[in-house]
Amino acid sequence: LFTELTSSNGSAARAGRHSKATHQETKTYNSRLVLRTIYDHGQISRADVARRTGLSRTTVSELVAELLAQDLVEEIGFGLSNGGKTPILLQVRDASRSLIGVDLSRDEFRAELVNLRGETQHAVSQPLLGRRGKAAIDLVYELLDELVPRATSPVLGIGIGSPGLVDIERGNQVHWSVNLDWMDLPLRGLIESHYDVPCSVLNDCQASAIAEHFFGPDRNRSHNLVVIKSEQGLGSGLILNGQIFHGDNNGAGEIGHVVVQPDGLPCRCGNRGCLETLASVSGILERIAAQRPRIPRTAVYNPARRRQLLDIDEVRRALDNGDPLVRQVVHEAGAALGTAIANLVGALNVQRIVIAGGIVALGQELLNVIQEEVLRRSLTALARETEVVFSSLGSRITILGASAVFLQQELGLTPFR
Amino acid sequence: LFTELTSSNGSAARAGRHSKATHQETKTYNSRLVLRTIYDHGQISRADVARRTGLSRTTVSELVAELLAQDLVEEIGFGLSNGGKTPILLQVRDASRSLIGVDLSRDEFRAELVNLRGETQHAVSQPLLGRRGKAAIDLVYELLDELVPRATSPVLGIGIGSPGLVDIERGNQVHWSVNLDWMDLPLRGLIESHYDVPCSVLNDCQASAIAEHFFGPDRNRSHNLVVIKSEQGLGSGLILNGQIFHGDNNGAGEIGHVVVQPDGLPCRCGNRGCLETLASVSGILERIAAQRPRIPRTAVYNPARRRQLLDIDEVRRALDNGDPLVRQVVHEAGAALGTAIANLVGALNVQRIVIAGGIVALGQELLNVIQEEVLRRSLTALARETEVVFSSLGSRITILGASAVFLQQELGLTPFR
Repeated sequence: LFTELTSSNGSAARAGRHSKATHQETKTYNSRLVLRTIYDHGQISRADVARRTGLSRTTVSELVAELLAQDLVEEIGFGLSNGGKTPILLQVRDASRSLIGVDLSRDEFRAELVNLRGETQHAVSQPLLGRRGKAAIDLVYELLDELVPRATSPVLGIGIGSPGLVDIERGNQVHWSVNLDWMDLPLRGLIESHYDVPCSVLNDCQASAIAEHFFGPDRNRSHNLVVIKSEQGLGSGLILNGQIFHGDNNGAGEIGHVVVQPDGLPCRCGNRGCLETLASVSGILERIAAQRPRIPRTAVYNPARRRQLLDIDEVRRALDNGDPLVRQVVHEAGAALGTAIANLVGALNVQRIVIAGGIVALGQELLNVIQEEVLRRSLTALARETEVVFSSLGSRITILGASAVFLQQELGLTPFR
Repeated sequence: LFTELTSSNGSAARAGRHSKATHQETKTYNSRLVLRTIYDHGQISRADVARRTGLSRTTVSELVAELLAQDLVEEIGFGLSNGGKTPILLQVRDASRSLIGVDLSRDEFRAELVNLRGETQHAVSQPLLGRRGKAAIDLVYELLDELVPRATSPVLGIGIGSPGLVDIERGNQVHWSVNLDWMDLPLRGLIESHYDVPCSVLNDCQASAIAEHFFGPDRNRSHNLVVIKSEQGLGSGLILNGQIFHGDNNGAGEIGHVVVQPDGLPCRCGNRGCLETLASVSGILERIAAQRPRIPRTAVYNPARRRQLLDIDEVRRALDNGDPLVRQVVHEAGAALGTAIANLVGALNVQRIVIAGGIVALGQELLNVIQEEVLRRSLTALARETEVVFSSLGSRITILGASAVFLQQELGLTPFR
């Protein structure tokens, strides 16, 4: 098997430059391999690390000594002997580093301080209340001002999941976010200079995909994964060959703005009949509100007021009670999602499709519609081996994924590698 | 920049094993880097190779000496001096190795012996005439029996582009090919034991994508690329991050069997209204034949006979003459392809989409319809930066891609890396 050196984010290759292997890179690689092995196995001896990694015992001992000195790993007592010396067990010190994850994709901004397992140490949130532009940035500062001082261990980084297109090449700028009225906002630079902590900004759906990949039930099994998040907006994040796939201009996963009904409802992107108008939580709420006779119409059209009249839990109750209008709108949403998933499955043959976000509240009835439509529109053999499931990570998914970026970047704790 | 070791086909990572960097791998990597640099630049001095690769001059000289001894590289005279010693120019000896490419996706099997630039040294073909199963395999042997003895330099490998699903993990079996009636056929093993030459079998659309990536006008520019081939069948090949993306079960790119018209025509896969029924060359011919009143219907339905009444060039002439039925069928095909491409662009943000195969004969009118539909169904910003073009590689595309597999596997001549 020929192995090849590639940069972890592909940027060297993308720039057309060639790189060569050096001893320092080999050492960094092996150190990360050891840390990852300990992280993945919970409690493990040096001998077992050597066995699982193929590294020599001497190399493992040297690398573990450094990890102990860095406080990333700790010795926690003795394991069972296999006849020889009683082995000392190692584990990762989950509280030895902190991470901050921020979710800007909802109608309230949320942020959490978490440990190396993504467990909450402290959580804060603030309702957005329509704030845009500079006022929305100030809200981010407000949340971070509260969180950063609470860290009791070194903060590896601040990961931000933002709606819209995020330009990875040019320093994590938010290239375009309609809802927040941000254009080419150098959010990463702003945060880094303000807090002197590494920051990473990524699309909130891509963050959700990282979360599912890293903390989901399928960790260390699926190499490919699509997460579709339906909330105010609708988008997806693609994990292909174990890494987020960004596409040529960071727009990969933007399936919410593929037009599925050319004569459909107007979308905030300027087109009509985008998938988002049919299958986002906002789209579902608006379509029900628009058609529901028992909701009084005011003389002046007021979308903010109309939207407040309904929430997704109310839709779920109406669905459970057999409300025919709600049933129709939800089934149309499910069919549209199923069609989009059939297209994804046909193009990518990814066998694990996870649906996340507020739409999950609609439960099994929605999932059944989606699954039936995928089956109806796909090559039977492909559909049979594909699982379409709801995420179990709940509303913390974006925060988890945004913070996990630093588990990967700073510690190399990527699943699979 | 942290660089990480990954296997070129991801199989080690997929199996969950970890690998470590060794000196031999570093040397192989650097040797391939040098060969690739010489291949890409045509004529280049050792000093320029060192400059472009970042390797030391001593290392480059040692590696070039080995490549000269292997006859892969030759010295071709002196270049211009930059003030110092007059440099000796190196180039790859294009005829020093041979490759064989085989295309099983058409109604005639074709094979070619080519040099390291994909230039034809000898070409053979045989009409399939409905042969299936064992008879179709014998036809492959017949072609190779004629080609293999004609090689005047060592044959690096035999690359076969086959219709259907090809199982990469289990030794390039043809997992499933309806047209050829092959199920779990160990084609690679059969060819390797028969000719004692390495063989690689891949899906013909994936081969086409490799061809476009390796020999197309965009070589060394696009890191991501989708090639859609419309011929008897319709499928696509995806190059993502510079490599063929296979999906979880080697089915990536099978967009031809996504159902786009649930009440449409029956497809050979068993479903109705697959994209293939609307937009493959066969689909277009059959739909025109079925609706055309001036083609006499025989009492007994005979699809083989009906298909012979029309070919794609005749369709092109009818289109140019403004035949309304032909225009309608071709425009429906274009709209269906455009919709499929909008889905791909939305999901992947791949900016270069190449259409290949016999359908290219329909020319600019078809391309216009496709491009308009992509624009209509995509986020405007995404569509504007996406180019949808016809391939310039013609009917040799599958042969070129199948043979190029060995330029990559045996010599490391991958674009970009």
